[in-house]
Amino acid sequence: MVNVKITDELSLTDDKFLMIAGPCSVEDEEQIVGVAKELKKTGVNVLRGGAFKPRTCPDSFQGLGEDGLKLLSRARDATGMAIITEVMDVEDLPLIEEYADIIQIGSRNSQNFSLLKKVSKQKKPVLLKRGFGNTVDELISSSRYLSMNGNHNIMFSERGIRTFEQSTRFTLDISAIPVLHEKTEYPVIIDPSHPAGVNRYVEPLAMGGAAAGADGLMIEVHPEPSKALSDAAQQLTVQQFNDLYGKVQKIVGILGKTMI
Amino acid sequence: MVNVKITDELSLTDDKFLMIAGPCSVEDEEQIVGVAKELKKTGVNVLRGGAFKPRTCPDSFQGLGEDGLKLLSRARDATGMAIITEVMDVEDLPLIEEYADIIQIGSRNSQNFSLLKKVSKQKKPVLLKRGFGNTVDELISSSRYLSMNGNHNIMFSERGIRTFEQSTRFTLDISAIPVLHEKTEYPVIIDPSHPAGVNRYVEPLAMGGAAAGADGLMIEVHPEPSKALSDAAQQLTVQQFNDLYGKVQKIVGILGKTMI
Amino acid sequence: MVNVKITDELSLTDDKFLMIAGPCSVEDEEQIVGVAKELKKTGVNVLRGGAFKPRTCPDSFQGLGEDGLKLLSRARDATGMAIITEVMDVEDLPLIEEYADIIQIGSRNSQNFSLLKKVSKQKKPVLLKRGFGNTVDELISSSRYLSMNGNHNIMFSERGIRTFEQSTRFTLDISAIPVLHEKTEYPVIIDPSHPAGVNRYVEPLAMGGAAAGADGLMIEVHPEPSKALSDAAQQLTVQQFNDLYGKVQKIVGILGKTMI
Amino acid sequence: MVNVKITDELSLTDDKFLMIAGPCSVEDEEQIVGVAKELKKTGVNVLRGGAFKPRTCPDSFQGLGEDGLKLLSRARDATGMAIITEVMDVEDLPLIEEYADIIQIGSRNSQNFSLLKKVSKQKKPVLLKRGFGNTVDELISSSRYLSMNGNHNIMFSERGIRTFEQSTRFTLDISAIPVLHEKTEYPVIIDPSHPAGVNRYVEPLAMGGAAAGADGLMIEVHPEPSKALSDAAQQLTVQQFNDLYGKVQKIVGILGKTMI
Repeated sequence: MVNVKITDELSLTDDKFLMIAGPCSVEDEEQIVGVAKELKKTGVNVLRGGAFKPRTCPDSFQGLGEDGLKLLSRARDATGMAIITEVMDVEDLPLIEEYADIIQIGSRNSQNFSLLKKVSKQKKPVLLKRGFGNTVDELISSSRYLSMNGNHNIMFSERGIRTFEQSTRFTLDISAIPVLHEKTEYPVIIDPSHPAGVNRYVEPLAMGGAAAGADGLMIEVHPEPSKALSDAAQQLTVQQFNDLYGKVQKIVGILGKTMI
Repeated sequence: MVNVKITDELSLTDDKFLMIAGPCSVEDEEQIVGVAKELKKTGVNVLRGGAFKPRTCPDSFQGLGEDGLKLLSRARDATGMAIITEVMDVEDLPLIEEYADIIQIGSRNSQNFSLLKKVSKQKKPVLLKRGFGNTVDELISSSRYLSMNGNHNIMFSERGIRTFEQSTRFTLDISAIPVLHEKTEYPVIIDPSHPAGVNRYVEPLAMGGAAAGADGLMIEVHPEPSKALSDAAQQLTVQQFNDLYGKVQKIVGILGKTMI
Repeated sequence: MVNVKITDELSLTDDKFLMIAGPCSVEDEEQIVGVAKELKKTGVNVLRGGAFKPRTCPDSFQGLGEDGLKLLSRARDATGMAIITEVMDVEDLPLIEEYADIIQIGSRNSQNFSLLKKVSKQKKPVLLKRGFGNTVDELISSSRYLSMNGNHNIMFSERGIRTFEQSTRFTLDISAIPVLHEKTEYPVIIDPSHPAGVNRYVEPLAMGGAAAGADGLMIEVHPEPSKALSDAAQQLTVQQFNDLYGKVQKIVGILGKTMI
Repeated sequence: MVNVKITDELSLTDDKFLMIAGPCSVEDEEQIVGVAKELKKTGVNVLRGGAFKPRTCPDSFQGLGEDGLKLLSRARDATGMAIITEVMDVEDLPLIEEYADIIQIGSRNSQNFSLLKKVSKQKKPVLLKRGFGNTVDELISSSRYLSMNGNHNIMFSERGIRTFEQSTRFTLDISAIPVLHEKTEYPVIIDPSHPAGVNRYVEPLAMGGAAAGADGLMIEVHPEPSKALSDAAQQLTVQQFNDLYGKVQKIVGILGKTMI
């Protein structure tokens, strides 16, 4: 596996397990800085939070945009955490690059080749989510766009695929972990929140992903999930997250990894 | 159904059936102008041809770009046909708008909401393809982005979805036709070429789509399919297309429609 | 294509199109004989009706069993129609064989190899439905069980597969028609009722299947659909069926076939 | 969760984790007794082995039938292990009942309602596999057939579903574990061998299933996988299984369970 350098202090290597956590969307300063401080206390070093949100319907909350990025920046100042946030539009890329430590390509843009080509020209590490309609081989092909200008600081994220099963929002495909490890050199981060769709299924999917050999998790956590402006049903409370964090730590310990 | 106005002379209404044909990619002047003249002779009024190509792998042919648009323009001058071509990148939109009569949003960009928002601000008719991992309801939601600034000159295209069946490239979902007709006012154009994957399956899928109530077809036709730079296996020869055109004409005649 | 001999008077050959119609379940004499007379008047020669019903839940109506077979027999006596009905259980096979002209293997038994082996030993023609979770290649493999003792009077039925799309009950895969025609010698009958799930989608799917090259249709028709004991939503009225019959006749006429 | 009583000595309860292992098919005495002794040494108490095999093609090895059951019986005599084997045909049920401690319903028979009804009348515990084209809700409905005569000694098995992803044979749906636990009282056994398709993916899927909260695993182990008459690619060697056993033991220990 390649060594993914996130910041000067933070690198993801074979013997580490990366925990990324934070709310679906950045909503206001109290929310994002508050939850960041809690997460940092637990041991989390990378904060997620959406400023530009890909929403199925145009009348859903679309994110705070640059204001959201500024709030993420304050959360970083307050905690020292690294920031990951999604870029949806090539025109926003310079802005995202300025604020983020890791650039996220969302599931719906996993084959947005124009975006991938432009992101390939910058130097920050990139987390590439699998399109929910894409095969593992297509995900790997998309990563070849990202690396075409020499940036190999790439992480994959499996976040569930579309299947006929409707009792969860998507079907988490944990077999993608060993297949990606066999075919590529990039780490695989499991997102258990989006396939779960409801928070009570997040823990089993997170645990399953960790034990199946994932290199990290990205989990949605909100100080008050029921008031969230997006994905309210699937976000964990801080308390739920802390319980889960302890269990995941034990699982990855068995596999010889330590949490970062 | 809304009346989709394509050009001053060409409108798609309830009693019409729109045939769109042309090569997957614009390759050179002889190819595109040559095939356009043949198609026009058969009765086709809208020419397709890709200048910017969304390709799974970065080392596949990516299209001729603006040169391709110029060649499309010459084919229009030579035949009087309207031109449809795909926009992949918001930065190319002004260029595409300048050359195209219909703007195509490809399957992999069906939920590229940044692109949809920007396309919504221009006035040309838009053909929105269904993402191969998207439900009909998501396709409808995407069309709401397109119409948010008042442009209702929208056509849907069903082009096959991802299923477990691998004997064709995608599974053409003809039930999307009545479902879309029930839930929206926009016409539905069937693309039989991409789900077929090989040219011998194109005719049955085209016929099936027409009889199931589609408002048009978009078919890949190449003067010499075996030499095509993309999608070689699935493109029809001009002769194959002409045979198919005659059969489709009879099918839609039964349904009370005339070909445009 | 093989010539499938159904009765002394009725054979399905390349230039014919077989219409099978009737209620989901046999319910009582008035229902089955009544609808049979109507269908015969329209021109239908094969009557469908379930006596043993595969139901997802044990408390759903399970069919009339042998009494249902006797009622089907009366409908045959009253109209001269051939009878098709489903066998679910190897122990019922002798009984089904006695009453039916065509033996149906349902979707959920498409890989019930014990049943297939036993059905292969009898001489009646067999309609083998595709399992909704099965590939075309698996369907072909199942037909090899049926033919292992020399019975080649086999018809396939495509009836929709499981996909992520939920706006219809199943996704009708019309590309299975050319694929099966290419790989096997058996005719393909499209069942538009089960994928539709509701009766207003039956017509477009039936038309699409016929135009895509199917060799026949099997359609659920009930004298009073709203009172049906199973599949109430998807059955056509006699009037709806008659309208559809006329349209299908025109479609298959274009393809050079006559209705039987 | 119900307490599933397997034998007088062996019960599956909330705080236990059941390991089932053995070859895909029973092949000869040396094979089955030999591997049983090895597995017993490791700590396995339930031996799997197919005597009647559901094979896609009629010319594949169909199992040894009653001779296979007799060999399983000798393995039981030699080790004291309980025996699980699949019933495919209602006519074989009395025989299976005589030899097996647990009766398995295979994936292709998960909606074979005739078989389920007959199995419901006997008293042995039953392992019901999920059909690879079936939803979790359909699996639960099938279990209602099994319990209709009062037998609640039922275990579910998730063994992978059909999806568009083809880099593994099936997609293991670990979210079925919490969903089934929420909606029913029966334990869930994960089969990682069939979704993996190749033995190098079995371990990550087994670990993932255990950590996601499964109540047990059923794993294919063969003394010499390359010589196996069925499923050669996916069976583990005894050594591979032993390594995996130790890791699973640690995982379930974290969740407060002990291996049985």
